[in-house]
Amino acid sequence: MTGMTAEHAEIRVDFHALKSLLSDIFSRYGTSPSTADILAANCAGCERDGAISHGIFRIPGYVASLRTGWVDGTAVPDIVGVSPSFIRVDARNGFAQPALAAAARAIDGAVESTGVAIVATRNSHHFSALWPDVEPFARRGLVAISFVNGLANVVPHGGRSPVYGTNPMAFATPVAGAEPLVVDQATSVMANGEVRLHALANTPLPPGTGVDSDGNPSTDPHAVLAGGALNAFGGYKGSSIALMVELMAGALTGGQLSFENDFGDCVGAQTPKAGQLLIVIDPRRGGNSQFAQRVALLCGRLLDAGQERLPGERRYRNRANAERFGVPISEEKLFHLKALAANGT
Amino acid sequence: MTGMTAEHAEIRVDFHALKSLLSDIFSRYGTSPSTADILAANCAGCERDGAISHGIFRIPGYVASLRTGWVDGTAVPDIVGVSPSFIRVDARNGFAQPALAAAARAIDGAVESTGVAIVATRNSHHFSALWPDVEPFARRGLVAISFVNGLANVVPHGGRSPVYGTNPMAFATPVAGAEPLVVDQATSVMANGEVRLHALANTPLPPGTGVDSDGNPSTDPHAVLAGGALNAFGGYKGSSIALMVELMAGALTGGQLSFENDFGDCVGAQTPKAGQLLIVIDPRRGGNSQFAQRVALLCGRLLDAGQERLPGERRYRNRANAERFGVPISEEKLFHLKALAANGT
Repeated sequence: MTGMTAEHAEIRVDFHALKSLLSDIFSRYGTSPSTADILAANCAGCERDGAISHGIFRIPGYVASLRTGWVDGTAVPDIVGVSPSFIRVDARNGFAQPALAAAARAIDGAVESTGVAIVATRNSHHFSALWPDVEPFARRGLVAISFVNGLANVVPHGGRSPVYGTNPMAFATPVAGAEPLVVDQATSVMANGEVRLHALANTPLPPGTGVDSDGNPSTDPHAVLAGGALNAFGGYKGSSIALMVELMAGALTGGQLSFENDFGDCVGAQTPKAGQLLIVIDPRRGGNSQFAQRVALLCGRLLDAGQERLPGERRYRNRANAERFGVPISEEKLFHLKALAANGT
Repeated sequence: MTGMTAEHAEIRVDFHALKSLLSDIFSRYGTSPSTADILAANCAGCERDGAISHGIFRIPGYVASLRTGWVDGTAVPDIVGVSPSFIRVDARNGFAQPALAAAARAIDGAVESTGVAIVATRNSHHFSALWPDVEPFARRGLVAISFVNGLANVVPHGGRSPVYGTNPMAFATPVAGAEPLVVDQATSVMANGEVRLHALANTPLPPGTGVDSDGNPSTDPHAVLAGGALNAFGGYKGSSIALMVELMAGALTGGQLSFENDFGDCVGAQTPKAGQLLIVIDPRRGGNSQFAQRVALLCGRLLDAGQERLPGERRYRNRANAERFGVPISEEKLFHLKALAANGT
């Protein structure tokens, strides 16, 4: 709590206090109380885990989308069980996270009765990381895979103009005796939030990250953000993964494709109106009751082979630190958040 | 049919004649008639489609695995419907393709009644491409995703020794007015069959393809094959996809992990004893009855953006040519195949 004069003095804020502050902001900009709590827990959780490109850095984008009416913060999702295993969710132009929460009971029922839930969500705005969606399933011994599409800002391999969103995919599995194994990655070379962090810091992007508005390679984050686009990771193979995510999340759900997003009059809105496909599987139905032990065996082998760390490990370390000492945040940012919550302008 | 004196004179063989010849070989080395037909159709289909690293090039490997008793060519798969959507298949140390064929009716039933089939296959040898497994579902308007693990010959990102198989994944969707969209790709930088083609031709691998037995980067295909390993594609993100495939195919199914393969006394055997997870989804349950039209829209957009061609396009072109003029094959190879079918030694 020292250093009031330093512009970027970092302090540590209690996680629940941060969550509560963010919930106030969401409420003030027109979300329902339950949606405010869900988004706040998600956003504060990203900040806590060090996933800062999906943390409070996103608040202005959320606020702009809410203020302009681009997203409906009070949407009540429509949940339809189309089969014992298949759940169709219309988020009704609301956020994806409350839609997922609203489907929780249906998902549990499907997994319990058939060992699998296919959750096809459309008309949903997903503006956060994907790991918060899948990690809870792994904590309960389930396997979860999720695909989300977004705003068209990734060029297909060999192409010159954007078609795909950064189209993240995530998967989570239980690990015997350890935290769940959680992978969450954009299919672009870099996540869009990271490009924006580069733009804020005025630092160049690594070569191969993206193209400018003419489709030519560029390392300028501003050029990539202003009419340019990112590349898919891993050449044509990564581009194919982006294609799969686009079709699963945007088409199979009955949602929008990334290139169909059009903000129209909603100037400043940032959240993508897209879709999400979530697959939850109970591994006990798969033929090995010791699934989590098998995952642990594989994880050990990866470290034996020289892999530096397991996916998600850094997040868990940040989380443990934040739970002990608070979430690190600059006083300046905290000041702005408090102003947003108080003024609502 | 000219050029009998040229060592590599290429001729064209009728697809059905090639299939029949391959079926004779499989039968002669101890597979049941139905398994012989299924493997022959698969292998001849790969050759026909120009997927030559999974075509007749693989016959010696199939034969060695059969001769040494490493794989059971007469295995009768055990199919258990554990829920209306979930099918557990024990291939009983047989090949994966006949196991999939044996589960066809159960898969159809699951998809019809619930819109989804999860097919968890274990104790299965998959020694071919994955697209033949998924393409037929797309032809019937369904979406299919498949994951297969294999023999440990891929190092995790940052590691120095192999843990993963080349762990291919495939997906297929219908496209309105066109052939299905089918992606089939190894999660290694290069498919193992291609490395073997480099070794046969004594041509170096592109930099970054793999490591030698000490874990050091190598472009020598012989070094990569003899105790070395391949890299995953796309750095840590591709390595995470390999991890997902390993867990879905090897662990969730109750099958073997790639690094658990041990040929023991079966000297020369090549087929991996592993697992396969197949997910089949009826997109009509997802909320958009025009799914195939939506895929076509996206495909058009990809080409508009400058993407050179769609995944699978080259295979379809080769297939059409082969159906018209026959499958191209060297006389020498055909001679060897005929000798194998006749002598069975």
